[in-house]
Amino acid sequence: MQTIEKLRERLAELSDLGSVAMLVEWDQLVMMPARGGPARAQQLGALARLTHERGAAQEIGQWLAELDGGELDAVDRDIVRLARRDWERISRVPQELAVELARASTDGQESWQVARANDDFAGYAPALERNVRLAAERARCVALEGQSPYEALLSDYDFGLRAGDLRALFGSLEQELAPMVGPASKHSPRRRLAVPVPAQQAAVAGTLARLGVEPSSWRVDVSAHPFSTWIGVDDTRITTRYGDGDVESLLSSLHEYGHSLYERQVDPALARTSLAGGTSMSIHESQSKLWENHVARSPAFAHVLAQELGQGGFSVPAEELHASLVGVEPSPVRVSADPLTYPLHIILRFELELALIEGDLAVSDLPAAWREGMRRLLGIDVPTDALGCLQDVHWAAGSFGYFPSYALGCLIAAQLWEKLEADTGSREDDLRTGEVAVMQRWLAENVHRYGRRLDTNELIETATGRALEAGPFLRYLAPLAGRGS
Amino acid sequence: MQTIEKLRERLAELSDLGSVAMLVEWDQLVMMPARGGPARAQQLGALARLTHERGAAQEIGQWLAELDGGELDAVDRDIVRLARRDWERISRVPQELAVELARASTDGQESWQVARANDDFAGYAPALERNVRLAAERARCVALEGQSPYEALLSDYDFGLRAGDLRALFGSLEQELAPMVGPASKHSPRRRLAVPVPAQQAAVAGTLARLGVEPSSWRVDVSAHPFSTWIGVDDTRITTRYGDGDVESLLSSLHEYGHSLYERQVDPALARTSLAGGTSMSIHESQSKLWENHVARSPAFAHVLAQELGQGGFSVPAEELHASLVGVEPSPVRVSADPLTYPLHIILRFELELALIEGDLAVSDLPAAWREGMRRLLGIDVPTDALGCLQDVHWAAGSFGYFPSYALGCLIAAQLWEKLEADTGSREDDLRTGEVAVMQRWLAENVHRYGRRLDTNELIETATGRALEAGPFLRYLAPLAGRGS
Repeated sequence: MQTIEKLRERLAELSDLGSVAMLVEWDQLVMMPARGGPARAQQLGALARLTHERGAAQEIGQWLAELDGGELDAVDRDIVRLARRDWERISRVPQELAVELARASTDGQESWQVARANDDFAGYAPALERNVRLAAERARCVALEGQSPYEALLSDYDFGLRAGDLRALFGSLEQELAPMVGPASKHSPRRRLAVPVPAQQAAVAGTLARLGVEPSSWRVDVSAHPFSTWIGVDDTRITTRYGDGDVESLLSSLHEYGHSLYERQVDPALARTSLAGGTSMSIHESQSKLWENHVARSPAFAHVLAQELGQGGFSVPAEELHASLVGVEPSPVRVSADPLTYPLHIILRFELELALIEGDLAVSDLPAAWREGMRRLLGIDVPTDALGCLQDVHWAAGSFGYFPSYALGCLIAAQLWEKLEADTGSREDDLRTGEVAVMQRWLAENVHRYGRRLDTNELIETATGRALEAGPFLRYLAPLAGRGS
Repeated sequence: MQTIEKLRERLAELSDLGSVAMLVEWDQLVMMPARGGPARAQQLGALARLTHERGAAQEIGQWLAELDGGELDAVDRDIVRLARRDWERISRVPQELAVELARASTDGQESWQVARANDDFAGYAPALERNVRLAAERARCVALEGQSPYEALLSDYDFGLRAGDLRALFGSLEQELAPMVGPASKHSPRRRLAVPVPAQQAAVAGTLARLGVEPSSWRVDVSAHPFSTWIGVDDTRITTRYGDGDVESLLSSLHEYGHSLYERQVDPALARTSLAGGTSMSIHESQSKLWENHVARSPAFAHVLAQELGQGGFSVPAEELHASLVGVEPSPVRVSADPLTYPLHIILRFELELALIEGDLAVSDLPAAWREGMRRLLGIDVPTDALGCLQDVHWAAGSFGYFPSYALGCLIAAQLWEKLEADTGSREDDLRTGEVAVMQRWLAENVHRYGRRLDTNELIETATGRALEAGPFLRYLAPLAGRGS
């Protein structure tokens, strides 16, 4: 067997194991009887250990060395390039540190759950300190030449982003957004609709069916927190949840649909290689935000949603429904934030995790820094740590560098959407009738098909002809504050 | 780490991987979108290859050699004994043969599906010939001293059974059963009840709930063919199917419940070792048949089933329901056979697969031999090969030596049931009220808790004080033919 074939075979195996792990996790969150948890943790642990062992194996390093500088076609060259990147990231972390990181992540989440329930930051601080210390230690192992520790962690989610660029981008975004919060919450106040659950269910099913979600290759289920997963190119699964009397289920369904459509439209030739799947967390989030912000929250698509709610027996004018989907209201909680305040929540987290990892902020000072930031960015007081710096699981699980992708996704979505309409003309008529084929095709051609061949910045420039910028997102938000877009 | 701990760690890993594979297969049959099949086959293939590699690894042989004759407690001694048995069976099969067997199994099932749909035995014969040849080749690799090739294959499912013993047992069973078919189909004719599906669903849910099936550690779903699976000790899943107007769903639910209860009641100290799980296919089948034949088909439990059907809106006298569950009618199809003719279907398959593997029957002569056997055993003509020797998937998948367990399960169930009632008194009052705690405890104590520590024959003797025998089963059947039991 040729070396490239050996490498491809191993990558296919790793891809298959990854799919199995996604399925096992999906089952845990959607189907598993409650008491199945302890056995499930052992099963996922066994899968993770084996996947790590096969993915960090020395023979991969040998194959990569043999392939270095050899004659390969363009796809195989990229396969080798990404395989080398992945293998180096894994194999640079000593086995003992990897085990310690996994243990600290589990312990941290347990400690966090207790602390959040009791609003007890001090009880959780030691676990967070340990996570920060271990993350910084891992960052030093995997950092490439010239990367700061934080940038090294960022590369887990978004390869190639620079902390300085993010700081500048988020700084100017903060300058623009913070002053809009007051006017927007007056001009577009948040209003909640009392939509019965059966009407929501009918509207979710009907809307997704219009977008091509059909039972021969999709599942739509319910879970405590909405998520999407892809077990195979024709086995895509999204979940949502139905709260009493709100329409979050509509937004979250389209959000998860966006993630899944991305994975489904990657070039099939890249399947089960190192190039399969979405290229980064921020591009992934841009795909979910595109369907959430630019489709579900558009005035035109509100006609489709209102019609589908009507099928479910709930009557609402499209204009009123749209208003309820875009209303602005500063609140301490990220996950329920509106499109304008959402990035401000992220900017705060970025500032704080950067400072934690770079050693500029002590864990004990985090609650005060959080309160100060929320006053500065959103003008609100944080009532408790449970509704403040204890609200997210990410740091408890040892994830640092993840948060920026949530805000970047909003910016990238807006930038792609402007280019999509520049290339294909206004989509308003399509949105009003729920006809999305042109959008799906443009996304496939300009974003999805590349898989991991292009990193975040390169993909944005290839798709839009410009570097990442905040202008399109600000233009998208302007009407909320009563300004022309 | 001590050698026994290394071995235990590997066995736990193999157990976890096995649980993952069971979950992935469950999902495939119960949840997966139809088009997910090709990716799923790759995922299961990757799991199977890795599990084989970890289970056949040379270091296991070294650990076993180091542990040979060492000081171990009784459980660890049995762990080593079974681990050695499993490891030798796997590692004696050359890698190329294992790959060829897997491929032939897949090809064989594809060929069989086409052949069955077109009633075209000749088109399938080459695939079956290949399966027979490869199974015999594997048998020669794994046969222990003094084992015939067929016995070596039988050991995959039921370690320690001898072909000669089976031949004698089944021969005398045939002598007893075949003459009963005519009288029984007159005395207890098969009558079908027209039970609407919603009533069946209510009765299945209500009956299983009485047996302890509760949602925190069980799932009950629908699949094309009923089966049960155990992902962890508190994550048990059974499936059933609802046909129009019959009560097969009631029988199959209790059948699958019996399999699952066995796995749940194995001593927890044996979990994730080589001793975990049911000891053999025939003992497993005895547990499902005990709940199917001796509970669901008992005159007393018919009162419970009738009551639960009543809750679902279908009214039927218990006596009439019982009659519909035990009626006798010879038919060419195994899976829908009644309790009396069922073992005769199995005896035919045993005779034929023994002859195929031992070289006494050519594949081309199989259809004629099948027709002759059905006339001799059941007195009926086989209309087509599709309803004859093409009806089962087992040989197409390369499984030889599996069939006997279906008949053995019926015999063992009856033998255990007689002993259970001898030890605890008649269960009639309990069955009439659906109170099964005494039965569950007796089975846990006398059968389930041992896991794989006792092989089939040893377990039967330990539980009942006697070797396997046909008498109890014949006494169970006697009333169907109008004889005293």
